[in-house]
Amino acid sequence: MLIQIADQYNDELIKLRRHFHMHPELSFQEEKTPAYIADYLRQLNIDVETGVGGRGVVGRMIKDPSLPTLAIRADFDALPIQDEKEVPYKSTVDGVMHACGHDAHTAVLLITAKILSEHRDAIPGNLVFIHQHAEEVDPGGAIQMIADDCLKGVDAIIGQHVSSSLPVGHLGYKVGTVTGIPDDFWITLQGRGGHAAHPDTTVDPVAAAIRLCNDLQYIVSRQVKPTSPAVLSITMLKAGEQNNVIPDTAAISGTIRTFDAETQSLIYNELKKCLEGLVTTTGITYDLKYLKGYPPVVNTAEEMMMIVDAAKKVDSITKLVELEPALGGEDFSYYLQRVPGAFFYTGTRNENFKADFPHHHPKFDIDEQGLMNAVKVFLQSVEDYFQEVNQ
Amino acid sequence: MLIQIADQYNDELIKLRRHFHMHPELSFQEEKTPAYIADYLRQLNIDVETGVGGRGVVGRMIKDPSLPTLAIRADFDALPIQDEKEVPYKSTVDGVMHACGHDAHTAVLLITAKILSEHRDAIPGNLVFIHQHAEEVDPGGAIQMIADDCLKGVDAIIGQHVSSSLPVGHLGYKVGTVTGIPDDFWITLQGRGGHAAHPDTTVDPVAAAIRLCNDLQYIVSRQVKPTSPAVLSITMLKAGEQNNVIPDTAAISGTIRTFDAETQSLIYNELKKCLEGLVTTTGITYDLKYLKGYPPVVNTAEEMMMIVDAAKKVDSITKLVELEPALGGEDFSYYLQRVPGAFFYTGTRNENFKADFPHHHPKFDIDEQGLMNAVKVFLQSVEDYFQEVNQ
Amino acid sequence: MLIQIADQYNDELIKLRRHFHMHPELSFQEEKTPAYIADYLRQLNIDVETGVGGRGVVGRMIKDPSLPTLAIRADFDALPIQDEKEVPYKSTVDGVMHACGHDAHTAVLLITAKILSEHRDAIPGNLVFIHQHAEEVDPGGAIQMIADDCLKGVDAIIGQHVSSSLPVGHLGYKVGTVTGIPDDFWITLQGRGGHAAHPDTTVDPVAAAIRLCNDLQYIVSRQVKPTSPAVLSITMLKAGEQNNVIPDTAAISGTIRTFDAETQSLIYNELKKCLEGLVTTTGITYDLKYLKGYPPVVNTAEEMMMIVDAAKKVDSITKLVELEPALGGEDFSYYLQRVPGAFFYTGTRNENFKADFPHHHPKFDIDEQGLMNAVKVFLQSVEDYFQEVNQ
Amino acid sequence: MLIQIADQYNDELIKLRRHFHMHPELSFQEEKTPAYIADYLRQLNIDVETGVGGRGVVGRMIKDPSLPTLAIRADFDALPIQDEKEVPYKSTVDGVMHACGHDAHTAVLLITAKILSEHRDAIPGNLVFIHQHAEEVDPGGAIQMIADDCLKGVDAIIGQHVSSSLPVGHLGYKVGTVTGIPDDFWITLQGRGGHAAHPDTTVDPVAAAIRLCNDLQYIVSRQVKPTSPAVLSITMLKAGEQNNVIPDTAAISGTIRTFDAETQSLIYNELKKCLEGLVTTTGITYDLKYLKGYPPVVNTAEEMMMIVDAAKKVDSITKLVELEPALGGEDFSYYLQRVPGAFFYTGTRNENFKADFPHHHPKFDIDEQGLMNAVKVFLQSVEDYFQEVNQ
Repeated sequence: MLIQIADQYNDELIKLRRHFHMHPELSFQEEKTPAYIADYLRQLNIDVETGVGGRGVVGRMIKDPSLPTLAIRADFDALPIQDEKEVPYKSTVDGVMHACGHDAHTAVLLITAKILSEHRDAIPGNLVFIHQHAEEVDPGGAIQMIADDCLKGVDAIIGQHVSSSLPVGHLGYKVGTVTGIPDDFWITLQGRGGHAAHPDTTVDPVAAAIRLCNDLQYIVSRQVKPTSPAVLSITMLKAGEQNNVIPDTAAISGTIRTFDAETQSLIYNELKKCLEGLVTTTGITYDLKYLKGYPPVVNTAEEMMMIVDAAKKVDSITKLVELEPALGGEDFSYYLQRVPGAFFYTGTRNENFKADFPHHHPKFDIDEQGLMNAVKVFLQSVEDYFQEVNQ
Repeated sequence: MLIQIADQYNDELIKLRRHFHMHPELSFQEEKTPAYIADYLRQLNIDVETGVGGRGVVGRMIKDPSLPTLAIRADFDALPIQDEKEVPYKSTVDGVMHACGHDAHTAVLLITAKILSEHRDAIPGNLVFIHQHAEEVDPGGAIQMIADDCLKGVDAIIGQHVSSSLPVGHLGYKVGTVTGIPDDFWITLQGRGGHAAHPDTTVDPVAAAIRLCNDLQYIVSRQVKPTSPAVLSITMLKAGEQNNVIPDTAAISGTIRTFDAETQSLIYNELKKCLEGLVTTTGITYDLKYLKGYPPVVNTAEEMMMIVDAAKKVDSITKLVELEPALGGEDFSYYLQRVPGAFFYTGTRNENFKADFPHHHPKFDIDEQGLMNAVKVFLQSVEDYFQEVNQ
Repeated sequence: MLIQIADQYNDELIKLRRHFHMHPELSFQEEKTPAYIADYLRQLNIDVETGVGGRGVVGRMIKDPSLPTLAIRADFDALPIQDEKEVPYKSTVDGVMHACGHDAHTAVLLITAKILSEHRDAIPGNLVFIHQHAEEVDPGGAIQMIADDCLKGVDAIIGQHVSSSLPVGHLGYKVGTVTGIPDDFWITLQGRGGHAAHPDTTVDPVAAAIRLCNDLQYIVSRQVKPTSPAVLSITMLKAGEQNNVIPDTAAISGTIRTFDAETQSLIYNELKKCLEGLVTTTGITYDLKYLKGYPPVVNTAEEMMMIVDAAKKVDSITKLVELEPALGGEDFSYYLQRVPGAFFYTGTRNENFKADFPHHHPKFDIDEQGLMNAVKVFLQSVEDYFQEVNQ
Repeated sequence: MLIQIADQYNDELIKLRRHFHMHPELSFQEEKTPAYIADYLRQLNIDVETGVGGRGVVGRMIKDPSLPTLAIRADFDALPIQDEKEVPYKSTVDGVMHACGHDAHTAVLLITAKILSEHRDAIPGNLVFIHQHAEEVDPGGAIQMIADDCLKGVDAIIGQHVSSSLPVGHLGYKVGTVTGIPDDFWITLQGRGGHAAHPDTTVDPVAAAIRLCNDLQYIVSRQVKPTSPAVLSITMLKAGEQNNVIPDTAAISGTIRTFDAETQSLIYNELKKCLEGLVTTTGITYDLKYLKGYPPVVNTAEEMMMIVDAAKKVDSITKLVELEPALGGEDFSYYLQRVPGAFFYTGTRNENFKADFPHHHPKFDIDEQGLMNAVKVFLQSVEDYFQEVNQ
């Protein structure tokens, strides 16, 4: 059992994670990260393909194409957030930060690949290591990498996400739907600017933006069926340059999260009605860019329970938590539309080390002692998978 | 009468105005504009002092310090607005534009100085040409130039503003209060960001900003005495960088315009109460920077009527319009706190030449045929002023 | 000079005022009040006509139809407000109260009539005492009484209102516009009710009402020219009967006050646009009843200054205050559209006697010691008027 | 099997339902309805107790106290809604209506009791028929009737509700939580009224109410965990009496629905924070009456599945629908806190007969052909229950 030797790689695991943490790169702007990954995998004597779907890296350890093939995936992009932690491994890039844990995902997958590569003779099957770019934006890297054939020959896929909600030692799982549909929207309101002392001579896009944003609250509070979870978050506002000038335009962006197409469609329609009403009331015009999000991650029962069983064999995993679905989005869903598989959550929360800020927070951090659990679950799942399919 | 020879300078007047229009500079960043002005005045054999109060330029044509001294003032800074006009003299600087007419003010004063300098023998007194920087921001250049003694020896001051409300040929005047008190505010709301799918785990500063901005409407609609004119314009919003991240902070800025200290104070207090209530309701914290604006421009009766009488002698001025006070701010007020004087408005509106957009609009323009009226009123006022005071 | 004997009527003046105060009657429901007035006037040997324009009472003291005729007007209706004062003369009618001072107006006019009737030989002209019903609602009693010929033969008219803003001893006056245009509106929003636990199955008229009422704030805060005073007050809300039932309809009513037809029209149009936008956004339908208010009271210069001069002769009037126009409505305007005249304000404020609540407040009261000033100004104005017109 | 003879009672079932429908009585005001029920049960030779817990009626058919006892419950109060249907059995009481189906519940239970009483020899146990008053208000009649010992000797209880969501022939069921926690709130905002033309002199409770109601939307849209269903419905607004008077107070009432105590508590706390913030911002004071609702109905597995099995034996039930929980409240929960039992939903929807309006709608109606299904499920459940417990 490979899980018994994994702990000796813990220092390197943490070192790798900190390296990525200090050098974050934004979605679709990743350069050094994929290069680093590719180098690392090559040194393990793994076949490496770079630029997959744009900026992805795929490592293939193919023993025999006629044998079963399991893929493991990690994402490696960062977020446009200023790192506010005071730690030695703080981000070195202004305004960019691994505030979601993709640095850890990458480190976990590289160490997993290293151990498996060093014991490749014991693995009766093929392995594909998918290092994906651009998970944080939509449409993200998954769909591009799939189009570029990263799943060629793959029979099943597994992946994981660190979780600031689960303490170190806990592992979260769920058969079926586990993430939501993350739609994004960008609205520009076009008014007619002018002097701030004479609002009556303008069509004030800032006032219209306030009214719209306030109106949008009523969609979730009044229009959506209460038992159909939904979020409409306005996350970006931008208008104006000077105190005494009413600008011509105001920009409003955000995300809409749902679990089902009916609610997704209802919210889109209500959003449109709010905009149309605003046109009537204020005389503003608008431009709406709306991007339907990737589908929910739907874990297949067999692969999910394989992971749960593997986790039970890992001593340092003290609790298995059946999760409720949550409205975060995850483009791992695209892989699951092609092949069976499952996605689990690895506890990295630790209040004592300030590793309890939510994901996407400027002080987000993880307790690195949780990461080896993810490596071990991957290792055990690989062993169990091939044992099972080769029976 | 100098007004009879003024028309021959019209081409140069327009050329000057277009020069400044094509090369706008933001408040407190003016370099080429004051240098150009200084050069121009020096070529007229006028004593020039530069760097007055920072970036101002003062030209002095002193015949005899014991004689009466009249000052004429123009401002020369531009605004952070993208020029959207399609004209040959369009701004050459991205995002910066003379959208208020200070280019024209400068050209008018330079031509006025030129004509007066060429006929200095006929002027029985001293003249001071005050070219002021940074009128668009508060505290602006006037108070700095005064501190730097630009009013030394000055007995009275006159000035003018082009007006997109008055057609070419009209001149606006008013004894007493003619502008408002332009306070500015900058608010930062500090919440606690996080994942856009989990607003319940955050203290959402965007939602708080929307509530605040909506609440602020009630100050003017309900709290201010209806017969005390007031404006609260929110002109800048800024929050967030990514669709799926609720940011930590949101910034809201704008201007508050009143005519009297009581209403000014009431609005400030209500603004504070809105913020304090928001703290209680949402758990947000805030930072408020509040800058009380310059005082209203209060024209003295004698000087205002002197200008009106001068204007009546100008054939191309077809109508004298007694204005209502308006809530625009103008730091000409600071000069009037030291010496008597008056500020008038020169019609430059012309629907046929698209010169009918409001001030501070990206398509703001003037009908240049109105500018010579301002020159002539200055010239005639100078002649009448010295005739009057020398009696 | 009749003003020298007036003080001996002070006890009766107060007694009359308290009588009316204790027995208030709502607009268009007045019965006992006009009967009481008619009786009182008849006992003075004044010709009385009742039911004028519905419920008005007109007393005529006609010496000779060929002589000049002056009218004095008072209103006598009360408001649907619960009296919350603790005084011996508190309203005896539940939910109805003289919260505007019409009780005092009536008492003042009756005592004025009494003194004049007792000295009718000394009056070289005719007098008409117009006791008007229903001033608080629109269209009120003035237009009805005029239609019923109450102004027959009248050459000029005067009237007064007590003022909780002016201390006892002050008298307010203004030539020209002194009141606003009081439009009223009644909106019913028609949705589709249902179970309060399932808002998604309803078209919620309460939520729509909240959005509308919030939207309406932007009209005054952003759309009206800041130097054009305007008020939009929502004074009545009514919706629903039970906690667990979303009702079918919600009702919203209030008043819109302006000084000019342009602003009046702008607000009406913006109100319509808010409603139309709401239809688009929410699917609600609406019914709008809109009643344009009576015109502003515009005092003629000659009559206003006659009153001012009369007031100067009254020792107990210590200060004459030139008022700003205010947005209250007053249907005295209709009389002034037919004949010249003026309307003044009598100070009845006194903080020491709790007579400092605003008009229409449940604790509104007056310092009765101010009332005799109004009687004296009427008496002196009558004497001066006939002296003037008979010259 | 009693279900085979039930159909012959269909005419009486419908007649009874129409009788109750035409004579609705509000919660805690029921007089004729319980009297009618008591008479009916007495004619069946059932022991009747009236005034149970106030206005409830309990019928007992006790064969032998040592035998098992099953209770069946129906509620009989109506709602303050104006019946807007055009049918012969329309409510005869102005403003009161059976808009939730309690008329049908009562008729169903009476016919069930009739059939069972006519075959009492075949029933090897005791039956208790609980006719409950006041289900629509909180705290309702259930808790009172229980306190008055209506469950004495009862081993299990069953009940049902007609459903406008389920077509005739469908039966809805769910093991575990099926309804929410229906809290109610009543808020009075106390300001300081005054003249509608002078809002600046008042503390306007209507404006404060609008702001509060708008603010309350953010609780569900932003503060509640998206996967924790919650509703905050404002169902009643009341303020003001006259267009030109800003009132002293405004009243706001409604309901808050949740499934769990944590969300319930969060919403209450946020509501308080909204009110406290409003005090700070506006100077208003408030009175909050908050009534925590009855607990969720939690069906026990054994009794729920007994009903499902019974329903399968009823030919006219064509579909068994496993429900999602919904946020409606139902005080049947109190019985289930004492004894095991289950509550099911009987389809009465039929678009062809306009029986498709939501519950609590003024046009709510049922297809009466669905009612016999409820009778049959009760009958079969009774037979199965005693067969099971007597084994």
